[in-house]
Amino acid sequence: MANIKPSLAKGTRDFSPREMEKRNYIFNTLRTVFKKFGYNEIQTPSFENLSTLTGKYGEEGDKLIFKILNSGEYLAKTPAELLNVKSSNKLIPHISEKALRYDLTVPFARYVVMHQHEIVLPFKRFQIQPVWRADRPQRGRYREFYQCDVDVVGSPSLLNEAEFVLVYQEALKALGLKDFTIKINNRKILSGIAEVIGKPELMVDMTVAIDKLDKIGLDGVNKELLGRGFTEADVEVLKPIILLGGSNIDKLASLKQVLAASAIGLQGVSEVEDVFRYLRDFGAASLLDREVEVDITLARGLNYYTGCIFEVKTNEVSMGSIGGGGRYDDLTGMFGLKDLTGVGISFGADRIYDVLEELNLFPASSSTSTQVLIVNFGEEAYSHTLPLLYQLRETNIAAELYPTAAKLKKQMGYADGKQIPYVLLVGEEEIASGMYSLKDMTSGEQQKVSLEQLIAFLS
Amino acid sequence: MANIKPSLAKGTRDFSPREMEKRNYIFNTLRTVFKKFGYNEIQTPSFENLSTLTGKYGEEGDKLIFKILNSGEYLAKTPAELLNVKSSNKLIPHISEKALRYDLTVPFARYVVMHQHEIVLPFKRFQIQPVWRADRPQRGRYREFYQCDVDVVGSPSLLNEAEFVLVYQEALKALGLKDFTIKINNRKILSGIAEVIGKPELMVDMTVAIDKLDKIGLDGVNKELLGRGFTEADVEVLKPIILLGGSNIDKLASLKQVLAASAIGLQGVSEVEDVFRYLRDFGAASLLDREVEVDITLARGLNYYTGCIFEVKTNEVSMGSIGGGGRYDDLTGMFGLKDLTGVGISFGADRIYDVLEELNLFPASSSTSTQVLIVNFGEEAYSHTLPLLYQLRETNIAAELYPTAAKLKKQMGYADGKQIPYVLLVGEEEIASGMYSLKDMTSGEQQKVSLEQLIAFLS
Repeated sequence: MANIKPSLAKGTRDFSPREMEKRNYIFNTLRTVFKKFGYNEIQTPSFENLSTLTGKYGEEGDKLIFKILNSGEYLAKTPAELLNVKSSNKLIPHISEKALRYDLTVPFARYVVMHQHEIVLPFKRFQIQPVWRADRPQRGRYREFYQCDVDVVGSPSLLNEAEFVLVYQEALKALGLKDFTIKINNRKILSGIAEVIGKPELMVDMTVAIDKLDKIGLDGVNKELLGRGFTEADVEVLKPIILLGGSNIDKLASLKQVLAASAIGLQGVSEVEDVFRYLRDFGAASLLDREVEVDITLARGLNYYTGCIFEVKTNEVSMGSIGGGGRYDDLTGMFGLKDLTGVGISFGADRIYDVLEELNLFPASSSTSTQVLIVNFGEEAYSHTLPLLYQLRETNIAAELYPTAAKLKKQMGYADGKQIPYVLLVGEEEIASGMYSLKDMTSGEQQKVSLEQLIAFLS
Repeated sequence: MANIKPSLAKGTRDFSPREMEKRNYIFNTLRTVFKKFGYNEIQTPSFENLSTLTGKYGEEGDKLIFKILNSGEYLAKTPAELLNVKSSNKLIPHISEKALRYDLTVPFARYVVMHQHEIVLPFKRFQIQPVWRADRPQRGRYREFYQCDVDVVGSPSLLNEAEFVLVYQEALKALGLKDFTIKINNRKILSGIAEVIGKPELMVDMTVAIDKLDKIGLDGVNKELLGRGFTEADVEVLKPIILLGGSNIDKLASLKQVLAASAIGLQGVSEVEDVFRYLRDFGAASLLDREVEVDITLARGLNYYTGCIFEVKTNEVSMGSIGGGGRYDDLTGMFGLKDLTGVGISFGADRIYDVLEELNLFPASSSTSTQVLIVNFGEEAYSHTLPLLYQLRETNIAAELYPTAAKLKKQMGYADGKQIPYVLLVGEEEIASGMYSLKDMTSGEQQKVSLEQLIAFLS
């Protein structure tokens, strides 16, 4: 075969040892928090039947699903007319019956329906797996990336929403973040607003417009509202709602007045109030004065969510949202299991990674990689160095012996490159005295230690 | 959209919470051992450029690679003549430029070549990721399964081989296995044998035949040898070699006599002797009398390996090999980086899972999932139960409150189904006295505990 200069497939990444350590640190921290709250991990296969995924993400989404070509003589039974006119799109179901997971939600819905007789409701699960999208790759957007979802299905209780606020708080705190905002809104509040201004049919248009407040400002939003079928009078009514200020209590009180004529709107306010009451009962009232913020411009894919919605951002670094989620009343209906409500949140692992990197919040690497490298001075010493290595490992110290008696400079370079914090020199003199020279690779300092001292020092 | 009864793609699996716990237990146990020996984790993308994978696994292997269909108007530039004659195979490069990872070895080789200026040699890495093969699914054979590989490249030292024996021993011991065999052979010994009987060109045929000794017995092997170009006289010469018995020392001594005329054969014996000497130096001589076994019928994909080869099986359960590996002299040559030797082993996660299951070696689930469920007697009690829940979690106890005041039976059923070991009853009386009723779900026994006692008990 020809020698090809290898490259990565477009939009994909390798993860080096140091990157893996950091990624595992994030995932393991999240895992620990999720489990403490009673969520259990599941995994679903990387590919699903194409029919399971098609039609769940809209027409644009369907195009971004990676399809897997059937094996063998996959063209044998394809209609000749589709081939003749090169009808790429129509040919797909004839030559592909499987596709890569596009998100974790649809496979989760499939899981719940298929395993409905094994699982106990409410079913609390989390899932940390890669997903794939045929997006145009760009800075920070990859074709393979991890999603990290936590959901509970089968429980309408708003206690779940309150717990998710706590999950966010505890997880982000555990990762070392100090200043973040958990935005909360409710889809019913948005419906209520559209109802109050007499345009319930324009609810989606309204939310799409006000969702952009951060980016295009009030004037931009107003312009967009006018372009989407609202009148100048509507815009005037919406203005104070969009600009709603004050504390969370103030905002909810104002909304109750504005939405007095809308049953669904009041229901939305009441749900947020319930979540707040539970948080106070939890003893977490301070969250409501600091981290949690009612934000009625928060929208998030509305055709999907039906109740409370969340979005989380850090205030320490300029970065988009690092998490979000909400309540959906019909997760599994697409697979024929009706009336199963769910609520869930997700964590944006790639963005969290960038935030921790920028704030220098990753723990030092030493705890999870090789602690000490024994310098190799030749096979004559093996009867001494190999048992030494064996004993270090027996006491759970990650240790290595350089595999050949290479020049000292090379062996030191290996320790350096691998960020091994200590190097142990075991020469003739050291073997005779039983006192080894231990070099601190950071400070350059060297000291003599016995085996016992070495173990105590590195443990 | 129509309601489809959902199903899994052929040959794939969902993993339930309990299965995930067990799988994570295996992977984390292996990770800990690998790190202790100085191996670091990397990950590569799930799909690679098709050209990176094609031609690396033989013609049959190429057919088993899952190809990903190009996005958009993928037929636009395809040659009409291929479509007209429905030439499935020749069309592939025109409509697919990416493919799912078939194993971890080729992506690792690509990684080493692409990152050769960042990594320090010898590069010790492990990788635990799924791979995909378009095999016909059958019992125990899936289209998506995890591989778990540990390799070092850039070091010819046989110390690495000795360390891999220790990695196997420590990892399998850590998983609770007590009786296993680590078979060792050397490709050069096999070359030497073919050379000695004057048929070096039939080396592959010979090893394919004797590799089957376990399955078809000596008569079967002899028949196959005759069918593959060996004479009755050759078979007579081979017989004592195939049936080589005695201790490892005896076997190596016999081999030295048999291979006296073959330089390469003696080299192979000498390499195995070196590995044994290092193991003795390590203080692990007892391994050579028990777990480690020279087996010259061991072959493993010979076009690939060039030195020592390994295979591991458990003697406690009837099961194929649960691991294997060996030395390869030219891993990265396929990508233009010559003369980089490597040696590696792998663990068969699915088979190890089945072995641990059969031997009941998985740890009790309680350590990693919800420890206690607080029964929900209604919102009136939330000002007491929610702070209680909060405090349990603050002390790192995984705890839940059932989200609604459902019937007691239902709440108990939830604890049962989720294998939660304890249930806490917090009724009016308990709130008044500050003494809660803690029910052991296994024994059914109930006791009164204070919050402090509860925390101490569950910690």
